[in-house]
Amino acid sequence: MRVTIIGSGNVATHFSAALKNAGHRIMQVYSPNFQNASLLAYHVGAEATSDLQDITPETDIFIISVKDDAIAEMAEALAKYQKLIVHTSGATSLDAVRAFTDYAGVLYPLQTFSKSKEVDFFTVPLCVEGADESITARLKELAATISNNVYSVTSADRKILHLAAVFACNFPNYLYGVAQQLLAAHNMKFDMLKPLILETAQKVQQQYPANVQTGPAVRNDQLTMNAHLQLLNHQPQLQEIYYLLSQGIIKNNNEGHGDK
Amino acid sequence: MRVTIIGSGNVATHFSAALKNAGHRIMQVYSPNFQNASLLAYHVGAEATSDLQDITPETDIFIISVKDDAIAEMAEALAKYQKLIVHTSGATSLDAVRAFTDYAGVLYPLQTFSKSKEVDFFTVPLCVEGADESITARLKELAATISNNVYSVTSADRKILHLAAVFACNFPNYLYGVAQQLLAAHNMKFDMLKPLILETAQKVQQQYPANVQTGPAVRNDQLTMNAHLQLLNHQPQLQEIYYLLSQGIIKNNNEGHGDK
Repeated sequence: MRVTIIGSGNVATHFSAALKNAGHRIMQVYSPNFQNASLLAYHVGAEATSDLQDITPETDIFIISVKDDAIAEMAEALAKYQKLIVHTSGATSLDAVRAFTDYAGVLYPLQTFSKSKEVDFFTVPLCVEGADESITARLKELAATISNNVYSVTSADRKILHLAAVFACNFPNYLYGVAQQLLAAHNMKFDMLKPLILETAQKVQQQYPANVQTGPAVRNDQLTMNAHLQLLNHQPQLQEIYYLLSQGIIKNNNEGHGDK
Repeated sequence: MRVTIIGSGNVATHFSAALKNAGHRIMQVYSPNFQNASLLAYHVGAEATSDLQDITPETDIFIISVKDDAIAEMAEALAKYQKLIVHTSGATSLDAVRAFTDYAGVLYPLQTFSKSKEVDFFTVPLCVEGADESITARLKELAATISNNVYSVTSADRKILHLAAVFACNFPNYLYGVAQQLLAAHNMKFDMLKPLILETAQKVQQQYPANVQTGPAVRNDQLTMNAHLQLLNHQPQLQEIYYLLSQGIIKNNNEGHGDK
């Protein structure tokens, strides 16, 4: 397919690389910042533009990968070309595009992207939604050329999925940072925790999280929890986080979500 | 070395398997529950006992891997044999053993163990502390036969490390479970989140967590955060967790802990 990329952020970058690798042609990359557009366009052999007027209709699909609150205005500007327009946002309804064209869809990659780290896109779950069945089918076909995990997900379910991703990715990453800072304050290296972090993520690839929960809270070990809260005496926000998450683990355990 | 294992839980199980694989001889496994003692003893070719009186001094080291509040009484019972006695607890001071013998130490494996999942013990950070330098040296030597990551860690630092491990492992695992339950409530599969969970843990193997933080909070995207809080309307505890962790991310970002 001929693809036009609107945006130059992390998602736009990984998406366009995956599409190019799969043999699709990236026609243009648009970003209001010409330098960003050029950098990405260079990598995927496309033309760069920072001027909306320079976007051509010589394409089969516009992939809008910009900040959520800018999706609608981009869709509005592109609707006149009567080509397929999709956005890539987890938190945004299909309607943000469909308000301007029936030829609307969503391609939401459920992954955390950093420009500095390569990702095997074939492992990335791609959530597809189309304004009608034929669009959904076409998007599924396109998605299958770059991912082995393609799902049909409605706008309502995608919002849940996006919320769940915050709990499964953004919050754990923040907690890794808390741990790293606790060690740094005592001249210990973050390296010490890396095998533990990896093993914790690997465990839940095979088992439900509640079944492999470990630590003082799931044992209801009040002595250790109190000692930990004591250690956090000068960091009331961390104390509150420690308390709340421990209560959550205890509650899960009492409700029998896990085996132990 | 000749090793006697006191305990039959997850840590005792993985520890004794690693020691046996490294060529050490497991002499006895003690557990108040004879069935548990037998099961583990069978796996590592040792004798099982559930009677403290049956523990023999025919050993070089007693490794006490029991609940934190039972460590001292075990050390007290074993001190008369005048052999090296170590515990494996992150949250417990060396003094729990040293109160009864000068021949005291700690071997704390910084990993999350489940009986149902194998772990490559050579990747497990082993934190060593001895009551004197010669004991520390001897424990380091022993530790190096089963792990490539041996650290000298004082009791005070080990407490911080244990606290950090709760933030880096137990709490992220709880949050994986929250995500899984959110999806289950909408008939979506936890499988969808697995690549994201793994990638999040893999990222911080190379970079500091604050530098790879993604999601609505680090972008200070109030619209999405409010929408997420709305979705959690009937789960006030989760709302509070969402709010607190998001505030933590925003605070980190404002203090310049990350690059973006």
